[in-house]
Amino acid sequence: MNALLLVAHGSRHQQSNDEVFELANQLKRDDSINYDIVHTAFLDVAKPSIPEGIVACIKEGASSITLIPYFLNSGRHVVSDIPDIVKEAAKQHPDVSIKIAPHLGDSDLMAGLLIEIVNSMHC
Amino acid sequence: MNALLLVAHGSRHQQSNDEVFELANQLKRDDSINYDIVHTAFLDVAKPSIPEGIVACIKEGASSITLIPYFLNSGRHVVSDIPDIVKEAAKQHPDVSIKIAPHLGDSDLMAGLLIEIVNSMHC
Repeated sequence: MNALLLVAHGSRHQQSNDEVFELANQLKRDDSINYDIVHTAFLDVAKPSIPEGIVACIKEGASSITLIPYFLNSGRHVVSDIPDIVKEAAKQHPDVSIKIAPHLGDSDLMAGLLIEIVNSMHC
Repeated sequence: MNALLLVAHGSRHQQSNDEVFELANQLKRDDSINYDIVHTAFLDVAKPSIPEGIVACIKEGASSITLIPYFLNSGRHVVSDIPDIVKEAAKQHPDVSIKIAPHLGDSDLMAGLLIEIVNSMHC
């Protein structure tokens, strides 16, 4: 089974973390998503951590896990921190394929999303 | 004329700021956008500041400015900091309509964007 792990930074404000959990719930409910399992993890501050999120996916039967970094910019977290954590975690689970999708802000579709938001505001 | 002001947090890493400028350039080039003017501003760390971005829009002839907060979560920056700065700036420009669009992470379209990114990774 294929799992998607939505990875956000994590915040001391529980509402921000809850927004990420809610987004993952939206992904779960969406019929067009090509993943059997969806979980959430946080790089820092909040729980579950990325290694914990990977274990949660494996416990549900995942043989392949794709992390999507819910980050806007290609800073240190995206370029180094998340790959380093995933590399370590992958050593613990050699039978599971773990890969990292491009981070959210890297998407060519971002401009289109912003335009949809702001055009709906235009009067 | 209508102006769009893309507002990001701002980073000490110039590449992250440059990504925001590049995104604004994509918005400018997009034929479907309902705004005559597009500028970028940063809440903190980087320049131009939000008040400077508002002035840049007005100098190009904007009578209406819509800020779009390029933020994922409804933390303090989105809930208080940006509205407080805009409120102060609006006092300096009473003839200009200045409004704030919902922040990026608030969009119902976000789940769809994530699904497009991760489905393209699926194998």
